[in-house]
Amino acid sequence: MSKMHLQCIRCKKIYELKELYLCDECGGILEVQHNYLGKKDRVIHELLRLPSFNIWKYKNLLPVEDPGHMVTLFEGGTPLIKGNHLSKKTGFGKLYFKDESRNPSGAFKDRPMAVGVSKAKEFGREIVVTASSGNAAASLATYAAKAGLKSYIFIPESTPPGKVSQAFVNGGIIIKVKGSYSNAYAVAKMAAREFHWMNITTTFLNPYAVEGDKTIAYELYHQLDRKVPDWILVPTGAGPLVFGIYKGFTELNFLGLTDKKPRMAAVQAEGCAPIVQAFESGSRKVDAWGTPGTIASAIADPLKGYEQDGELVLEIVHDSRGTAVAVSDDEILGAVFDLAKNEGIYSEPGAAVSYAGFKKLSENNVIKEKQSVVCVITGHGLKDPGSAAENLNIPVIGPDLEELKSHIKL
Amino acid sequence: MSKMHLQCIRCKKIYELKELYLCDECGGILEVQHNYLGKKDRVIHELLRLPSFNIWKYKNLLPVEDPGHMVTLFEGGTPLIKGNHLSKKTGFGKLYFKDESRNPSGAFKDRPMAVGVSKAKEFGREIVVTASSGNAAASLATYAAKAGLKSYIFIPESTPPGKVSQAFVNGGIIIKVKGSYSNAYAVAKMAAREFHWMNITTTFLNPYAVEGDKTIAYELYHQLDRKVPDWILVPTGAGPLVFGIYKGFTELNFLGLTDKKPRMAAVQAEGCAPIVQAFESGSRKVDAWGTPGTIASAIADPLKGYEQDGELVLEIVHDSRGTAVAVSDDEILGAVFDLAKNEGIYSEPGAAVSYAGFKKLSENNVIKEKQSVVCVITGHGLKDPGSAAENLNIPVIGPDLEELKSHIKL
Repeated sequence: MSKMHLQCIRCKKIYELKELYLCDECGGILEVQHNYLGKKDRVIHELLRLPSFNIWKYKNLLPVEDPGHMVTLFEGGTPLIKGNHLSKKTGFGKLYFKDESRNPSGAFKDRPMAVGVSKAKEFGREIVVTASSGNAAASLATYAAKAGLKSYIFIPESTPPGKVSQAFVNGGIIIKVKGSYSNAYAVAKMAAREFHWMNITTTFLNPYAVEGDKTIAYELYHQLDRKVPDWILVPTGAGPLVFGIYKGFTELNFLGLTDKKPRMAAVQAEGCAPIVQAFESGSRKVDAWGTPGTIASAIADPLKGYEQDGELVLEIVHDSRGTAVAVSDDEILGAVFDLAKNEGIYSEPGAAVSYAGFKKLSENNVIKEKQSVVCVITGHGLKDPGSAAENLNIPVIGPDLEELKSHIKL
Repeated sequence: MSKMHLQCIRCKKIYELKELYLCDECGGILEVQHNYLGKKDRVIHELLRLPSFNIWKYKNLLPVEDPGHMVTLFEGGTPLIKGNHLSKKTGFGKLYFKDESRNPSGAFKDRPMAVGVSKAKEFGREIVVTASSGNAAASLATYAAKAGLKSYIFIPESTPPGKVSQAFVNGGIIIKVKGSYSNAYAVAKMAAREFHWMNITTTFLNPYAVEGDKTIAYELYHQLDRKVPDWILVPTGAGPLVFGIYKGFTELNFLGLTDKKPRMAAVQAEGCAPIVQAFESGSRKVDAWGTPGTIASAIADPLKGYEQDGELVLEIVHDSRGTAVAVSDDEILGAVFDLAKNEGIYSEPGAAVSYAGFKKLSENNVIKEKQSVVCVITGHGLKDPGSAAENLNIPVIGPDLEELKSHIKL
């Protein structure tokens, strides 16, 4: 058997690494499966080398077959920042932030997009398409530019303007779709089918892109001195990041490099929480959310038409003895300021939800003080500064000492 | 003699590493001088180790004396991206971009600020202050937050809103000063003196901060396999980055690790080009600029009251057999799009000037095709998206195939 293939998560049907989105047989989610044992030595060597600056350090674990097709802007290799003031305030001595805002386009999406666009080159495609709440849009335009491909991008009308500008300046062809993210998802899928474009929508639709998310697990393993954290908290829309990180740790475990797996906490916004709703009701079935209403636009995904994505995340939550929790907009905004004012980490609302979730879960004693905790900070504050910095009232003075003094209260 | 001291660049007076901004004797610019030979082995070992993720890899070359005072968010360690499509279009096979947008706050300023704020801790200061056109503001607030210090920030009224939000969310106390950057500079200096705050204005005023800029040279040396580029193009306001990078290469040369130094090109915006004006007139004296008028707000520094900063940059330009060149707003905007659409590098206008300068200098045959060239990209496009993405006309459709088709021209 070759070293990698696609497999349907539901009916287990196997395919070669071709361009396919959902199972031909049953419509289930596809996953890249690796024959780890057939290349164990090489893979272990790769995992144990010192971290380099990008995800391609782990190229034997990624589904790009010809290194000549790798498209990179040195994504990944992001820092793990140990909590300082927030550790002291919360009493958690092992609180960490995986700062994904340090990726090229300012969000973790660059990991799956680098893999997805490389795969598009490998398939010889010239046009790529994505549905996005904004970050994947900017990221796809960025990597398509680097690869010399044309990119079509479908976004909800309410996408934050900074992300739209970013996708536009990078040459993306942008079309807004009325309604929620799920409508953009439907149009991207329609367009890919109608015009034969490669669909790099980063839900679970593109089975290659999600492999990029795995690299966060490998990096954490290095950065924590080959230890596995007790908890990982992940901002969750459709949830491929929950899946990818858990898959990475599962691989490390399978290869005998670790003896446990982390507990995964999927954190959603109260205004769009289909996975949490199912988790709390004890159901393994996820119902699509109605109309999202939250400042965390990056994770406002109702899952309408692809509810199975949420069900897969739910399965990981249960398998890892983790949890799913929803936080309010006020808690999210509080988390944005907590991170920025205490740790110097400036995140967008959709990224700070991991810390908001940590606060709630630690206050409820689900996560305990002695445990090690990683909050994944998925995107930079500059991506969506709106809600955290509206109507600033900043004084204006002339270059004059007396005017200055009247504004300084010591 | 201890391993480091401050020295006046003009009158050569020597001081210990105390809190001092300009020479007590003559008002000249102060520089940190290192006794490299006294720690040569250690320094060379540090320079030759593999790159880590941050500037503190080079701690023996930085003026922070107690490692316990280091304040870090893993700044530096930014990628050097080899030109792809722009190499082909320009015919330059050795064209590189040092992507400083990958720093924590999205701009190179994190290098000097990390050193400056660490030094503030070392001096036991609780309040820090800066004058800034925006990037240093956001960066100081970020590092002050991490360090647990209070930050006062003086900015021109016209500072881009994204940078103001960023400084605000990170807890900076912001005051706008009427007029150009030079007025903010004057007020910050006034405030530091009046209230005994540590001044981390990143012109040449704080002699410690500028040391952070040196680390770009060390990283380039690694990233170019121990070769020195023929040209380095630097977006230039007051110019400490020109000074810092050149100093780093001078050190490598002095230590016997390289046999040449790069030619430094200081690139300014036509709407605020005091250094270029002096260079073109053949003078070694720099006159302050009147009222700046450029989209490159990050480098719009008239140097009024600290013209000696420009004169020091001019000296480096001459010493390195480099040049100084000004580019128009149209050329800058063109460079923003060239970088984003061809290389996936999304930069703010004040950061893309290095590439705009490269285009002009290569078209004028000052820089030649066989030469290796590094353009320093100083800040992320998300910092100041305004001028590149105004009045986007983006279509809106419903989730409908016919509507979709009417918008796709294949």
